[in-house]
Amino acid sequence: MILAEVIRSGFAESRHRGSVVVLGPDGQAVVRAGETTAAAFPRSANKPMQAVGMLSAGLDLEGKLLALAAASHSGEAFHVAGVREILAGAGLDEAALRCPPALPLDERALRQVLRQGGDADRVHMNCSGKHAAMLAACAAAHWPIGSYPDPEHPLQREIRRTVEQLSGEPVAAVGVDGCGAPLFALSLTGLARAFRAMVRAEPGSAPRRVADAMRAYPDWTSGTSRPESALMEAVPGLLLKSGAEGVVAFALPSGHAAAIKIEDGAARALPALTVALLRSLGLGGGADDTALDQIASVPVLGGGRAVGHIRPVLPTGLDTACDE
Amino acid sequence: MILAEVIRSGFAESRHRGSVVVLGPDGQAVVRAGETTAAAFPRSANKPMQAVGMLSAGLDLEGKLLALAAASHSGEAFHVAGVREILAGAGLDEAALRCPPALPLDERALRQVLRQGGDADRVHMNCSGKHAAMLAACAAAHWPIGSYPDPEHPLQREIRRTVEQLSGEPVAAVGVDGCGAPLFALSLTGLARAFRAMVRAEPGSAPRRVADAMRAYPDWTSGTSRPESALMEAVPGLLLKSGAEGVVAFALPSGHAAAIKIEDGAARALPALTVALLRSLGLGGGADDTALDQIASVPVLGGGRAVGHIRPVLPTGLDTACDE
Repeated sequence: MILAEVIRSGFAESRHRGSVVVLGPDGQAVVRAGETTAAAFPRSANKPMQAVGMLSAGLDLEGKLLALAAASHSGEAFHVAGVREILAGAGLDEAALRCPPALPLDERALRQVLRQGGDADRVHMNCSGKHAAMLAACAAAHWPIGSYPDPEHPLQREIRRTVEQLSGEPVAAVGVDGCGAPLFALSLTGLARAFRAMVRAEPGSAPRRVADAMRAYPDWTSGTSRPESALMEAVPGLLLKSGAEGVVAFALPSGHAAAIKIEDGAARALPALTVALLRSLGLGGGADDTALDQIASVPVLGGGRAVGHIRPVLPTGLDTACDE
Repeated sequence: MILAEVIRSGFAESRHRGSVVVLGPDGQAVVRAGETTAAAFPRSANKPMQAVGMLSAGLDLEGKLLALAAASHSGEAFHVAGVREILAGAGLDEAALRCPPALPLDERALRQVLRQGGDADRVHMNCSGKHAAMLAACAAAHWPIGSYPDPEHPLQREIRRTVEQLSGEPVAAVGVDGCGAPLFALSLTGLARAFRAMVRAEPGSAPRRVADAMRAYPDWTSGTSRPESALMEAVPGLLLKSGAEGVVAFALPSGHAAAIKIEDGAARALPALTVALLRSLGLGGGADDTALDQIASVPVLGGGRAVGHIRPVLPTGLDTACDE
């Protein structure tokens, strides 16, 4: 179904279709539109669960560095320093990273790297926190280091078990993520269920430790210029993680949880769509409405000024007919 | 309809829908899928027609600089020098440009600009050739300079007349393009018709001069690292221009012409889709099949290596039921 329209000069120039599932406080689906039970690749929306699996394997991180282990970070200076700190804690350095080289996602950080004569490298890649933490988990568990991205490595088997436990469903397929790590396919419903499980887990448990670290340090799990951190800052208790190819999943302390996949893989409609979806659930007290308005307002530019916007289209109810 | 699938690890992770029209040598539609008669914004696929309108207004450019007037260029050094040459020929400099500042599209050029301490500016913006040529056309016609992007400016009225004449239909709406210039809405069928008219126009006529300049200097009308120039180099006589939000239009000397609009605005499927469409039309002799294979092969990456690809899905026949 159509989830957003891109409006230019009053004209719907482009449209984004996709699938949405929303779970109510009791964990039952209250909104289901599109493909919500078919296998999909959550991409980096799996990272919070992957970090839980690393803790189960013996990873010893808290706070900012744990948020970074679950991050798609922007490659800002503090992220890079954090990645190096995780590696150093395991007696390693960035030569051990197996993620591919990339420039920072953050535009200011990108300019800084290039202006200082740098270029794409592994430590600036948005998944380097996850890769560093995977290495540290292997070191803690006395597992082989060099083969850590192998799906049959004990760490990846432990992560897979964790993903299945939190999502409440078997992993439907194993692919290769953009960063080279194993990528576990889940249904959108399973993905939302996993996020719900993390915010409702016992304080101090591995899932709750990851959820709490991400919520305490949203800049460390995305970046200072990112809608993901702005959303978590605007909505108390919100756990949210995006993934490549148009994925986002979130959960609230109320027990509401949701997952969205944009069919075409574009991310640009997700901020406006997420804000509309969050508001439709009722946010309780404490949400920063001005910040949410700002996050939802994504201008379409003409000659440098706004000549349009992205209009979210919220699904309602249970649309089983479209479910494949 | 679905026009392409993005395959990762054997799994269709994302899909691109869109509309396609193909005209046969006699100008009649032989393929029609999706919205082919409804108004759409061709974005920069209008630039060849806009350049024809500028010639009609008195613009005096040939060869590389005429190709640049119709360009969405990559901001490489030779493009920037060309834009400055067009401006200097009219006694102007880049302070007169009204397009917004931007960094080069070309990654090497972008790195060079930033490493030399530069940043986004108007002359590097991909539409600066068009804007410079609009200014030069105003100077040649003794029209006001400063108001050239106004839809009621005599230049824009002349361009609109040209667009209507070449496309064979009235402009359905006028919007603001990303660069701030007027943006004339056409049907996909009208867009394909205009490209067909340009390659079939009398040698020496304004439409044919633009078509010939673009085909002689594809790097000047896109860039050295762009699929658009690679396609024109691989297929003798091909006139092709892309536009923002997933638009491409092309015509062949045979009289075949086509226009594609990806519904979600993404460009990534267009190279593979265009190659498949061109091959379905039969290219005659002289096409560089190895180059076409390379253009069509767009890898989906995992850990820096190909773990998938973009698979085009070609529509066939006249699908009037889906036409809106």
